[in-house]
Amino acid sequence: MAEETPAIVPVVLGVRSYDILIGPGLIGRLGALIDERFPGARVAIVTDANVRGLYLETVERSFAGSGLLGTIVVPPGEASKNFSELARVADELLGLGVERNDLVLALGGGVIGDLAGFAAAILRRGVRFVQVPTSLLAQVDSSVGGKTGINSKHGKNLIGAFHQPVLVAADTDVLETLPKRQLAAGYAEVAKYGLLGDAAFFAWLEKNHAAVLTQEPAALRHAIETSCRAKAAIVARDETETGDRALLNLGHTFGHALEAWAGYSDKLLHGEAIAIGMVLAFRFSEARGQAAAGSADRVARHLKSAGLPVKISDVASNTRPSVAEIVRLMAQDKKVQRGHPTLILARAIGEAFISRDQSWAEIETFLEPHCS
Amino acid sequence: MAEETPAIVPVVLGVRSYDILIGPGLIGRLGALIDERFPGARVAIVTDANVRGLYLETVERSFAGSGLLGTIVVPPGEASKNFSELARVADELLGLGVERNDLVLALGGGVIGDLAGFAAAILRRGVRFVQVPTSLLAQVDSSVGGKTGINSKHGKNLIGAFHQPVLVAADTDVLETLPKRQLAAGYAEVAKYGLLGDAAFFAWLEKNHAAVLTQEPAALRHAIETSCRAKAAIVARDETETGDRALLNLGHTFGHALEAWAGYSDKLLHGEAIAIGMVLAFRFSEARGQAAAGSADRVARHLKSAGLPVKISDVASNTRPSVAEIVRLMAQDKKVQRGHPTLILARAIGEAFISRDQSWAEIETFLEPHCS
Repeated sequence: MAEETPAIVPVVLGVRSYDILIGPGLIGRLGALIDERFPGARVAIVTDANVRGLYLETVERSFAGSGLLGTIVVPPGEASKNFSELARVADELLGLGVERNDLVLALGGGVIGDLAGFAAAILRRGVRFVQVPTSLLAQVDSSVGGKTGINSKHGKNLIGAFHQPVLVAADTDVLETLPKRQLAAGYAEVAKYGLLGDAAFFAWLEKNHAAVLTQEPAALRHAIETSCRAKAAIVARDETETGDRALLNLGHTFGHALEAWAGYSDKLLHGEAIAIGMVLAFRFSEARGQAAAGSADRVARHLKSAGLPVKISDVASNTRPSVAEIVRLMAQDKKVQRGHPTLILARAIGEAFISRDQSWAEIETFLEPHCS
Repeated sequence: MAEETPAIVPVVLGVRSYDILIGPGLIGRLGALIDERFPGARVAIVTDANVRGLYLETVERSFAGSGLLGTIVVPPGEASKNFSELARVADELLGLGVERNDLVLALGGGVIGDLAGFAAAILRRGVRFVQVPTSLLAQVDSSVGGKTGINSKHGKNLIGAFHQPVLVAADTDVLETLPKRQLAAGYAEVAKYGLLGDAAFFAWLEKNHAAVLTQEPAALRHAIETSCRAKAAIVARDETETGDRALLNLGHTFGHALEAWAGYSDKLLHGEAIAIGMVLAFRFSEARGQAAAGSADRVARHLKSAGLPVKISDVASNTRPSVAEIVRLMAQDKKVQRGHPTLILARAIGEAFISRDQSWAEIETFLEPHCS
């Protein structure tokens, strides 16, 4: 296969700056790509049992027998983002002999990136790590920006660290083996970048979503690259989320509550919850008179055409959440301050903003028809 | 009691700068001191069962019923620096409702500071914390500089984070209840600052150690303040130990190996291990012709007069470590790179340096007479 030059999206963060490489055939060249940038660094891989079967051999072979300390395999799925798995990964990384100048390579989806990145963050008080995201969601979102962590019984991602990777290698070829439902879930985060800050990109997606979802190379690459550029720009402005970075949570406060309600299970994938959450955020913005009538319907129409659920009743479940349940779960959000809700709302498609002036009572009233 | 103005030692680290307050009567004023600096922040206390009995009531009372979210009590001792205790503390902090703008207050010795500080570092990807060190060792060393963490089966402090406190309040009164042996162990770290970079301070300690150890107020305060200033200066130069900060590890590579050999037990306290380690570092420096003959004896004489062990055979134990055992444990040190040992050696009292040109074989030969 000819080596196509990957797109390079820089994430500009001073001494913590790094590149996102986007293109086909990257995982077969990882050893060389890493050696070129970090000469002499040794690498420990963290992956999950699913990805191991698909891509581990290719990645290991790319190191040509040198510089690889070993591989740690984690059970697939969100349930691995817990303290005991974190302890096991950290201990095994130490057991493999990972030192301060070595690299942890996260090969997998968001769960692996979050868990391995967090393990790297706390190993010897911080070793470097490389993200090799194998899901669309991880490629456009979780692998970029340095948020790592695990879940607590009190909520998702409540334990973690800001720890930027030193390189992200998003191989567009690996998405070929991604189940369609996972691809659509990742697409929700792609659409998010249009909805929160780039109306032209959203319009492009309305025309080209089929090409993206059937993985037509140029369309797929454009969607991933545009998403990464959008995220990189926001992260560069606000690395630790003291301000603007919160915009990336469009759809996430409603969405996280729905995920928690569904038990973080296959019943509702993260991206699916975010799709419903974004529609709710636009409906709430409309209800408050902040966005023009029809915006939410346009959002819902598009996400639905991408195969995503757009309302709570789209979730295959025998039960429906009560308003009280959703509101209680929303209250666990990291953005809640002194019990007061913060939401990401929108003035228009492509124009999200951080809203703090709504009350819980207002949210409850709004949610009533959506929960029944 | 009249309120004596505390000494203030600034730790200058840009946006992460903070003050160390040193003086009597601080814990009875903590609520006011914190409210003055962080108006409106709510506080969750982490302490251990020993300190709870001695000082928790005073601290809680200082908050006058406002702003206190609750207290988490940890079993005393190094064994609490593990993943399951970390998970418990983090979950309980979330259960108490600690949000991003709240404070975690570590009330205790080094174990509490390391554990609570690490929990704060990873809670919601980082909440602020205040160190209220109740041991001499914590006041002059572990509470300052932002190193937090827990132990792994592979070694001490191998899992952790750099997370600077926003305030350190070192109340000299609380040392009154500290057992003499613990006081002496803390004194080893005081002497370390003289040995590594301040010959005049070491000479002052040679004259005044009795006054420090009997807690004559002016002498004690001078010793703590000088130690904190020394540490603050080094940390300001090199926050994450990419260079000079390693000097603070004088005596620690040998010392950590001895602690590991003793099972991190009461058989050998951290400061005691560091006392022996510093003498060994000076003996090794002499043996290599880097320090003048007689330096190590002077170091040993002083530490012995402070009630500290100064050679491996001073440790009350039925067994002695073998050279192979010590060297294997030294190889677990965080400063080891590609298996090559890094040591902190000295050219003279007050002049430590980072040494990388020794071999394991040389260390083994040197250790032979000290292990038998």
